[in-house]
Amino acid sequence: MFLTSKSLTSVLRQYPIIKSEAPQRSPAMAGHLHNSEAFNYGVETWEAYKRGALSKDLVEEQKKVQEADLLIFQFPLFWFNMPAILKGWMDRVLVQGFAYDLSKAYDGGLLQGKLSLFSFTTGGGQEMYSKEGIGGDIRYVLWPMQHGIMHFCGVKVLEPHICYAPENVSEEKRKEMLAAWSQRLKTLWKEEPIDCSPEWYFK
Amino acid sequence: MFLTSKSLTSVLRQYPIIKSEAPQRSPAMAGHLHNSEAFNYGVETWEAYKRGALSKDLVEEQKKVQEADLLIFQFPLFWFNMPAILKGWMDRVLVQGFAYDLSKAYDGGLLQGKLSLFSFTTGGGQEMYSKEGIGGDIRYVLWPMQHGIMHFCGVKVLEPHICYAPENVSEEKRKEMLAAWSQRLKTLWKEEPIDCSPEWYFK
Ligand SMILES: Cc1cc2nc3c(=O)[nH]c(=O)nc-3n(C[C@H](O)[C@H](O)[C@H](O)COP(=O)(O)OP(=O)(O)OC[C@H]3O[C@@H](n4cnc5c(N)ncnc54)[C@H](O)[C@@H]3O)c2cc1C
Ligand SMILES: Cc1cc2nc3c(=O)[nH]c(=O)nc-3n(C[C@H](O)[C@H](O)[C@H](O)COP(=O)(O)OP(=O)(O)OC[C@H]3O[C@@H](n4cnc5c(N)ncnc54)[C@H](O)[C@@H]3O)c2cc1C
Ligand SMILES: [Zn+2]
Ligand SMILES: [Zn+2]
Repeated sequence: MFLTSKSLTSVLRQYPIIKSEAPQRSPAMAGHLHNSEAFNYGVETWEAYKRGALSKDLVEEQKKVQEADLLIFQFPLFWFNMPAILKGWMDRVLVQGFAYDLSKAYDGGLLQGKLSLFSFTTGGGQEMYSKEGIGGDIRYVLWPMQHGIMHFCGVKVLEPHICYAPENVSEEKRKEMLAAWSQRLKTLWKEEPIDCSPEWYFK
Repeated sequence: MFLTSKSLTSVLRQYPIIKSEAPQRSPAMAGHLHNSEAFNYGVETWEAYKRGALSKDLVEEQKKVQEADLLIFQFPLFWFNMPAILKGWMDRVLVQGFAYDLSKAYDGGLLQGKLSLFSFTTGGGQEMYSKEGIGGDIRYVLWPMQHGIMHFCGVKVLEPHICYAPENVSEEKRKEMLAAWSQRLKTLWKEEPIDCSPEWYFK
């Protein structure tokens, strides 16, 4: 569940791994294939995008992205990563021609002008996710999501919002975490994006 | 497609994002919920594992893992990551109680004694995936997969096998890449696992 204040639009996918609307269920394209002899998912979706033949659910998601100024992805960390269902959203929605194109990537990506924010909960505690902790710096897991996906599409990235181990902390602490998030949302528009380069992640 | 020589077993998922067997389609559990008031995917699958109530397809995958000495994951790199369908396999199959448990993680993970190998193709060329390249060192993308998943479950990790940009290289070069892989497979059992610690990834 999520906020949608006047110009704050969020594209949100929670983790219904076993829910019926898993994006993988419906095909990405309607109609014939561009090259049925050698199927290539990237080529087929790109071609389908150009001829307006992407499947309806996918086009609807693309519209939401187009209209949004800010994409907030809220999820529980699953295997140092986003859950598969959210990864499926990325794989299906961010089609070539729509999100990036030949030589239109990174700072030149097609979704320029938008912001993104990765907000997630973990099972492990904060001390585990430090440079010396067994889980390593939490920023390491953000590289594929923030740099590899968002930056690649030209989307700027705000500081991530991480709630460590909500299952294990006190009710008191949980309330604090929610309050901190509400607080942050109030001034989100004044925040500067991070410098999404290797230094931010790996120092 | 893959090799299965005498003791070499591979658990392989290719990238049929739009195929019908997407693991997300079938529920992870059969029967009643442990706690239907506050649904928690991790808790429910753990409890279902303990009472033998995980869904059949999932149990079959777990059997394959149990029997394998070596898990080879072959996939095209999608968004600095494995495709969602393979991530869904990880999310669903590597259940608590089966792959790891309370204080049985990393070197103490429940899948100790097994090896793994991530073998993948890319769109970007090798020069792009260097420390100075826009994609950063390719090892950065391996952290969540190798350390966050395999090492977490106690599985040792062999050097990854990366075929850069098969779509863009010459037929000659493609043949070379296949030959190199065949060659490597012959002596795979003599290889030593990598030292799966932050140094390997981030130096
Ligand atoms: C397949 C799988 C893989 C996983 N892999 C990892 C991993 O690699 N690393 C890791 O660290 N963990 C991992 N986990 C654990 C997972 O990240 C946590 O279980 C999850 O993030 C907990 O959040 P939740 O919202 O699902 O908790 P819930 O059980 O829904 O919530 C627990 C309590 O916290 C409250 N709460 C939830 N979110 C917040 C919030 N943001 N602020 C305040 N209160 C809140 C709820 O109301 C409830 O009272 C994994 C779990 C699974 C199932
Ligand atoms: C949603 C999406 C996200 C993507 N994200 C990224 C990304 O983050 N980074 C990135 O670099 N790329 C990315 N790509 C590109 C993707 O990784 C490549 O398109 C894919 O790896 C190419 O391999 P393939 O086997 O699918 O090629 P195919 O089109 O099936 O094969 C091309 C040719 O190479 C041959 N071939 C295939 N594999 C081999 C091999 N191992 N050895 C020798 N010959 C071979 C085939 O027989 C064929 O002749 C993405 C693509 C998509 C669709
Ligand atoms: Zn970046
Ligand atoms: Zn490791």
